Amino acid sequence: MSVTAAQGFSAAGVAAGLKPSGKPDLALVRSVPRAVGAAMWTANRVQAAPVVVSKRHLELAEPQAVVINSGSANAATGARGEADAEATAEGVAKELALSPEEVLVLSTGVIGVPLPLDKVLPGIRAASLALSPSGGDAAAGAILTTDSGPKLAVARGPGFTVGGMAKGAGMIHPCLATMLVVVTTDYPLAAGEAGDLLRPAVEESFNRISVDGDCSTNDAVVLLANGASGIARDSTSDEAFAEALGDVCSSLARQIVADGEGATVVLEIHVTGASSQEEALSIARRIATSPLVKTAVFGHDPNWGRVLAAAGSAPHGDGFAMLDPDLLSVSFEGVEVFAGGAPTGRVPELVGPSCRIELGLGLGDGAASYLASDLTYDYVRINAEYTT
Amino acid sequence: MSVTAAQGFSAAGVAAGLKPSGKPDLALVRSVPRAVGAAMWTANRVQAAPVVVSKRHLELAEPQAVVINSGSANAATGARGEADAEATAEGVAKELALSPEEVLVLSTGVIGVPLPLDKVLPGIRAASLALSPSGGDAAAGAILTTDSGPKLAVARGPGFTVGGMAKGAGMIHPCLATMLVVVTTDYPLAAGEAGDLLRPAVEESFNRISVDGDCSTNDAVVLLANGASGIARDSTSDEAFAEALGDVCSSLARQIVADGEGATVVLEIHVTGASSQEEALSIARRIATSPLVKTAVFGHDPNWGRVLAAAGSAPHGDGFAMLDPDLLSVSFEGVEVFAGGAPTGRVPELVGPSCRIELGLGLGDGAASYLASDLTYDYVRINAEYTT
Repeated sequence: MSVTAAQGFSAAGVAAGLKPSGKPDLALVRSVPRAVGAAMWTANRVQAAPVVVSKRHLELAEPQAVVINSGSANAATGARGEADAEATAEGVAKELALSPEEVLVLSTGVIGVPLPLDKVLPGIRAASLALSPSGGDAAAGAILTTDSGPKLAVARGPGFTVGGMAKGAGMIHPCLATMLVVVTTDYPLAAGEAGDLLRPAVEESFNRISVDGDCSTNDAVVLLANGASGIARDSTSDEAFAEALGDVCSSLARQIVADGEGATVVLEIHVTGASSQEEALSIARRIATSPLVKTAVFGHDPNWGRVLAAAGSAPHGDGFAMLDPDLLSVSFEGVEVFAGGAPTGRVPELVGPSCRIELGLGLGDGAASYLASDLTYDYVRINAEYTT
Repeated sequence: MSVTAAQGFSAAGVAAGLKPSGKPDLALVRSVPRAVGAAMWTANRVQAAPVVVSKRHLELAEPQAVVINSGSANAATGARGEADAEATAEGVAKELALSPEEVLVLSTGVIGVPLPLDKVLPGIRAASLALSPSGGDAAAGAILTTDSGPKLAVARGPGFTVGGMAKGAGMIHPCLATMLVVVTTDYPLAAGEAGDLLRPAVEESFNRISVDGDCSTNDAVVLLANGASGIARDSTSDEAFAEALGDVCSSLARQIVADGEGATVVLEIHVTGASSQEEALSIARRIATSPLVKTAVFGHDPNWGRVLAAAGSAPHGDGFAMLDPDLLSVSFEGVEVFAGGAPTGRVPELVGPSCRIELGLGLGDGAASYLASDLTYDYVRINAEYTT
């Protein structure tokens, strides 16, 4: 269902020939009634052409459709890349009787390869003809690269629905990642509201995950809201909508980590008692990106020594986040392994597809959580073989 | 030769029984004439007991001997750990007729395991009896953990010698790493000078390498200078000494990276044209720690897209280091693959044990270099299997 779970959205996914495998590689999502929307983009200084173009479009108009190709990231492709992204938007606009500025373009795949417009434009035509209120699954399948399967999430509130799709797998790290997410809702939002609601939801979900600590050139999270539910809003329904949006984002974020390249275990990192919120987040992120912690979890080893070493070197200001080893406690899967500056001697058993790591600093009220995948042979295989 | 290459130093390496394998695990280095010395330590907030104790000793006296054990890091071992490190220094002091403050203690191995003093103290006695001006190689062998072999370096100036040994392998990242380095020289230095000379040499060598981006609890670089060469100093010899010290540190740093856990290739990353020196270093470090760049190099893939993506997300202040994709150039092994915002279409062949990656930013005068190892199956194997 994904992006067509909410009323008033249609979607399609087709094989345009961008992927040598012949798998679906072009997705189209459109709102039937007029929608308002917002997006958040990668903070990488190297931004892909579709990101540059879509940001410009969002400043000029409310987005009505999103076109997404996999197979080519259209990043680091120079002036030609931007022209190609514009031509993609124009292609969609022509088919759907929109203005090009009302179309957002997202791309994922190999960096530095020009977008083959001769395949993209016929693909857009085919996708336009296939647009359907039941096309959400097809769209979600067409945006994947090294993902092992689609990421879908739906949350329902009183009288409205929020649905979303995502692709993830590699270069996953906040701010953001090679991660494309489209969330749709039939909840009525006024112009300008979508961004205010999207930001905190993304901050607590997609900005708290890491597969490999690498930050991509193409990341995007798009929210479209068309009000097709027809419900009347009040503060209760607004809260329910924020919660449903948060749930969809959190579910998609977790699915991205669980399907991280080569991942076998989801690390759930919870830091409490830090001197500040900012330091809690830095420590959680440092643990989430430590190759030594990630390989230990892959080896089912509750190696709290590596957790301590990572926590002790979390950047903050010009130095490291505050930490006093004598006040620290660490547990794996609820079993305390380190407390008061010394090991407890307890040995938790790590089995199953997730591993909860809790670090108590005993300093203040700062707390933060993070999700990460483990570092495995398959991560190396996938990334040593996936080529330019 | 390593630490006994310079005149007036003796060393030994013995098997004290700390390693289950029965391999040598305790090294002792002493200066015969009185020495002056300095050390640099890990910046990790979690500091091992020997680091805490040795820092205290250095404030009280000039170091005359260094005792190093492998097999146990004596880190995160609480008050007992500090008492054990003190007892280790006292053991050496008793054997060598020194005061305990004149002894530095370094440890490497598993975190969180108490130091077995019942093995360490007899080991110290055996090492004291074995001390010899030809014991440098034995000492260098006794400090290794997952290293595949010893790291030795010697540089000679007019009338004097600088020699050193190191252990590395994992948790290697500046500021610093599970990296223990002892450098000795017979060049005459006055009290207080050793630190001023050591700092820039370390900054340009050990603080510019990364195996896995993890920063250890035990890192130390120690310099002992005993003046046994008897040469007279002038500004020319001072320059020659600084150069020799830099050469020894750079050689050991490169050996550590080349023998990084599972490493097959040394990445030589050179950033030029950054807006500032600080930004150049941040970008170089970001590339050096990118799992995607490191797996690409392992796969002999000149994946400049991943280099761009990493460079574009190098932290600086509250954001990212400055970078304009249109001004960027990237080359692998001297072959330009990206210039003026677009790929050049040239495809370098990556073979051999090193890979030079050059990034030109075209913005200013900031430049920095970094050495890193690639990310391989063996890195994952070693770290998923090496257990607490």
